[in-house]
Amino acid sequence: MTMFPQSPLLLLLCAILIPLPSWTLPFEQKGFWDFGIDGDGGGMTMMMMRDEEEGSAVEELPSPDVPMCPFGCQCHLRVVQCSDLGLSAVPKNIPADTKLLDLQNNRITEVKENDFKGLSNLYALSLVNNKIAKVHPRAFTPLRSMQKLYFSRNLLTEVPKNLPSSLVELRIHENRIKKVPEGAFAGLGRMNCIEMGGNPLQNSGFEPGAFKGLKLNYLRISEAKLTGVPKDLPDSLHELHLDHNQIQAIELEDLSRYKNVYRLGLGYNQIRMIENGSLTFVPNLRELHLENNRLSRIPGGLPDMKYLQVVYLHSNNISRVGINDFCPQGFGMKRTFYNGISLFANPVNYWEVQPATFRCVSDRLAIQFGNYKK
Amino acid sequence: MTMFPQSPLLLLLCAILIPLPSWTLPFEQKGFWDFGIDGDGGGMTMMMMRDEEEGSAVEELPSPDVPMCPFGCQCHLRVVQCSDLGLSAVPKNIPADTKLLDLQNNRITEVKENDFKGLSNLYALSLVNNKIAKVHPRAFTPLRSMQKLYFSRNLLTEVPKNLPSSLVELRIHENRIKKVPEGAFAGLGRMNCIEMGGNPLQNSGFEPGAFKGLKLNYLRISEAKLTGVPKDLPDSLHELHLDHNQIQAIELEDLSRYKNVYRLGLGYNQIRMIENGSLTFVPNLRELHLENNRLSRIPGGLPDMKYLQVVYLHSNNISRVGINDFCPQGFGMKRTFYNGISLFANPVNYWEVQPATFRCVSDRLAIQFGNYKK
Repeated sequence: MTMFPQSPLLLLLCAILIPLPSWTLPFEQKGFWDFGIDGDGGGMTMMMMRDEEEGSAVEELPSPDVPMCPFGCQCHLRVVQCSDLGLSAVPKNIPADTKLLDLQNNRITEVKENDFKGLSNLYALSLVNNKIAKVHPRAFTPLRSMQKLYFSRNLLTEVPKNLPSSLVELRIHENRIKKVPEGAFAGLGRMNCIEMGGNPLQNSGFEPGAFKGLKLNYLRISEAKLTGVPKDLPDSLHELHLDHNQIQAIELEDLSRYKNVYRLGLGYNQIRMIENGSLTFVPNLRELHLENNRLSRIPGGLPDMKYLQVVYLHSNNISRVGINDFCPQGFGMKRTFYNGISLFANPVNYWEVQPATFRCVSDRLAIQFGNYKK
Repeated sequence: MTMFPQSPLLLLLCAILIPLPSWTLPFEQKGFWDFGIDGDGGGMTMMMMRDEEEGSAVEELPSPDVPMCPFGCQCHLRVVQCSDLGLSAVPKNIPADTKLLDLQNNRITEVKENDFKGLSNLYALSLVNNKIAKVHPRAFTPLRSMQKLYFSRNLLTEVPKNLPSSLVELRIHENRIKKVPEGAFAGLGRMNCIEMGGNPLQNSGFEPGAFKGLKLNYLRISEAKLTGVPKDLPDSLHELHLDHNQIQAIELEDLSRYKNVYRLGLGYNQIRMIENGSLTFVPNLRELHLENNRLSRIPGGLPDMKYLQVVYLHSNNISRVGINDFCPQGFGMKRTFYNGISLFANPVNYWEVQPATFRCVSDRLAIQFGNYKK
């Protein structure tokens, strides 16, 4: 009960469960009506006539099964659903056993120190699409079980501090983060996935050690202002998505750290050049997305990629495709066949490419060519 | 396998699991590259040289644990997380055992017939914040286990047809729905909650029988164009939220159908009058929100509401409060004390109200008065 000092509906609950007089219980109700305090605060008057005799005259208690739930929210099976309510703050009276709290599409401007007090069972929290610019540094401390934090589409200028060590997934797309300082994710050893696209992040915005301690599988920094592949990302990555940036080139050592990557998204950049040998650092690659760049030839090294299955190269400036650009010359070099190659919207014409170029493709339908569109 | 005729990554999976030559399996791959087909379609050329000898020369299969997952999405513990990817269509290759599919914050314009084919285990689907104006009438048919459908912030002009009978919760806030025809929710006997606020719904937009067959607990039609309480809503409702409409008055019979309601949200309307006796039809009411209306007096009948605990009346035009407006005169009439009454921002002055008016309030802090703000 001390977990909910500001909870009038817990009072309600207690009023149901505990014999009267319930007002003698040590609840602090301060704060419940805070939203109604006049600007100067001086106009607020408390009125109460406590008539003990009348109180004791109250009849036997009803037993209504009215669960505690913030007004307007819908509480069901430990999910507290408060989206689209026009809320300007995190509501009070969230049940302590809540597993999932959905606060998306409101007008919350700030996360305060005690907003999530007592929610030690919370597994997932969505604050997507609010106006949050400020998060108290201890606001997330009570959320000892939180694995998923969805914070996209807000006004954050930094990654929230002191995220709980239980966190597995952080989505913080479309905020105003320009800088990720050293140790921004310190203590988050269980983290698996970060999605931080849609922020005005330049390469210089990542301080050395920004990702220190993280063993991520998935990282997405799309729709940002990167001009090259960041050097200092976790080497555990399986998936790296850097589409919709301003990357100019892939240089020899750019991928050397990311030897576990099997999905690499580099579409919608300004890549003119992929230095020969770059791809030897990612021998496990299964999917390579390079569509909508400025490549004038097929990247070197594809025939040596034993597991590569999908290559997107459409909407580039490729004017010729050589017979050995995709497939190895010897037998048995490629362990999995391609099942997706896209080449349309390039200046190369299909009749200029020899059919044998695709001898290591699983199915003819796996190749998308098409004419170059002027 | 026949559930994923358009799935190249299922092919990938099969290529891993099944001995080569995998291309002899009866997959239809048509459609995978559809997005790349030129306007006239005539430019597309299929190229494939099938060299059986080379095929058979492929070495032993690798065993990479690369799960099937749409590119850019993050698939983890049967959750497929594809938000914020700029997708213009529902992606292919969604694993068949997916429980939760999150497609929010994309640019999807249409839900097509086969978009969810095979997803018979899906429990929750979020399509929030897309540009969906069109839903194929059989699109949701495969979703035999779907309990939650989040469809807010799209361009729908009608409630999607043929929703699965498993559905428990539908959120369809902020669309363009003007009309709910008879039988719009036919067959949805398990439905518990509908949130359909933020649509341009007038009272006349609900055809008689629009909610036929529904046993809802929760209904929200806020931020719409209602001028009165709709007459024909499910009589099972526990919570009815009609805030932010243009309701002018509560007439005697308006609430007569809703005898189970314990939370009633009528804030932010234009209510001048609540006919005496109206509230006798909702004897189980716990919370009554009437803030930001045009009431000039306290609604009649409050002292008889045995379980009423919270009454919001702030920001009205109330100029006097009588000593018996809230509390019964006799002993023992009220079974639960008020724990929240708001009266601030009304022209009544606190010194004009006798303290005994609040003799059935649990705590002096439960009353918010404050001065009338000019």
